[in-house]
Amino acid sequence: MLTLYYAPTTCAVATHIALEEAGAPYEARRLNLAKGEQRTPEYLAVNPKGRVPALVTEHGVLTETPALLVYVASRFPEAGLAPLGDYVAMARLNEFNSYLASTVHVAHAHRLRGSRWADDPAAIEAMKAKVKTNMADSCGLIEERLAASGPWVMGDRYSVADGYLFTVSRWLDGDGVDIAAYPRVKSHHDAMLARPAVQRVLPHHS
Amino acid sequence: MLTLYYAPTTCAVATHIALEEAGAPYEARRLNLAKGEQRTPEYLAVNPKGRVPALVTEHGVLTETPALLVYVASRFPEAGLAPLGDYVAMARLNEFNSYLASTVHVAHAHRLRGSRWADDPAAIEAMKAKVKTNMADSCGLIEERLAASGPWVMGDRYSVADGYLFTVSRWLDGDGVDIAAYPRVKSHHDAMLARPAVQRVLPHHS
Repeated sequence: MLTLYYAPTTCAVATHIALEEAGAPYEARRLNLAKGEQRTPEYLAVNPKGRVPALVTEHGVLTETPALLVYVASRFPEAGLAPLGDYVAMARLNEFNSYLASTVHVAHAHRLRGSRWADDPAAIEAMKAKVKTNMADSCGLIEERLAASGPWVMGDRYSVADGYLFTVSRWLDGDGVDIAAYPRVKSHHDAMLARPAVQRVLPHHS
Repeated sequence: MLTLYYAPTTCAVATHIALEEAGAPYEARRLNLAKGEQRTPEYLAVNPKGRVPALVTEHGVLTETPALLVYVASRFPEAGLAPLGDYVAMARLNEFNSYLASTVHVAHAHRLRGSRWADDPAAIEAMKAKVKTNMADSCGLIEERLAASGPWVMGDRYSVADGYLFTVSRWLDGDGVDIAAYPRVKSHHDAMLARPAVQRVLPHHS
């Protein structure tokens, strides 16, 4: 049994979808970030980083979305959620996930989590002002990627990277970016909404 | 033949070390970021993100350090640079690399690249003021990790994650963090300096 610690609409959505797509046996435990449940002694004992997601496995606790996604795909290979035997294709998948984690998620986080990187309230406001531009720039790159090799991130085959892109594309509206300006990202988003696994996960993230 | 585009002391150091440790046939091409060589039309045709590192392969251009490190380890498996057959150990390696990419590197980047996330000069200064604290917090977590399973990131076996940690630990002094306060990180740093592959790479990054 796996236990996923998550908070609604965070990047934990991606791992939540991966577990559901894999048909994994798991329990999902919700944290309320507004109440600071990610900083309780109990949760810090699970994940000293005080963040979500965290996945409790029989091999210990795992964190970081790009690592979790490949872990789930590798643990449930029959689900076909990653091109596991092809290291070049895996590099493409890891490249995409890493870009979402270290560039796009970071750009988004400057809207609601600016206090991570500055204490001055005016600076935190200044960060918010640039989120729309940065997210739009990232969407432009992702749109090109999907144009070159869509409709899924890895081309014709759905993978864990798609749940991650969907996680991020759900943030666009709040970030001031109109997804309709990126028709392939929009089509991807709509295709994700049609998947039964996604429909089972979304009630936990609204 | 592989071609690595890099700039001195950036995160490209990690991939540079991995290629050298692997005994890979490669050419290293240096970009001068201060002169804006990462934004020339020629380089943007290689890497539309306008960042380093980028690795030109016969399968196309690959980017993002966590993806590049696993790619190099997978392409040259005889070098033993990652626990390729063990998906749980690979999750640990990917978790560590992803943390460096999306938390630690991002924290560091707020010192010199704050203009990515705000336009206001006062905000950019405010970001600089918090870099030391954030890097120290990250070092604390990494010190605990090495205490639990050092001396290398993956325990007794050197891996591509070690070159990445070394890349980051070289930034600490400039970020105002005294590496001596983190004895295991310091020992790791010193052990890296003693490796012949690292000694071959460092003249390109000084």
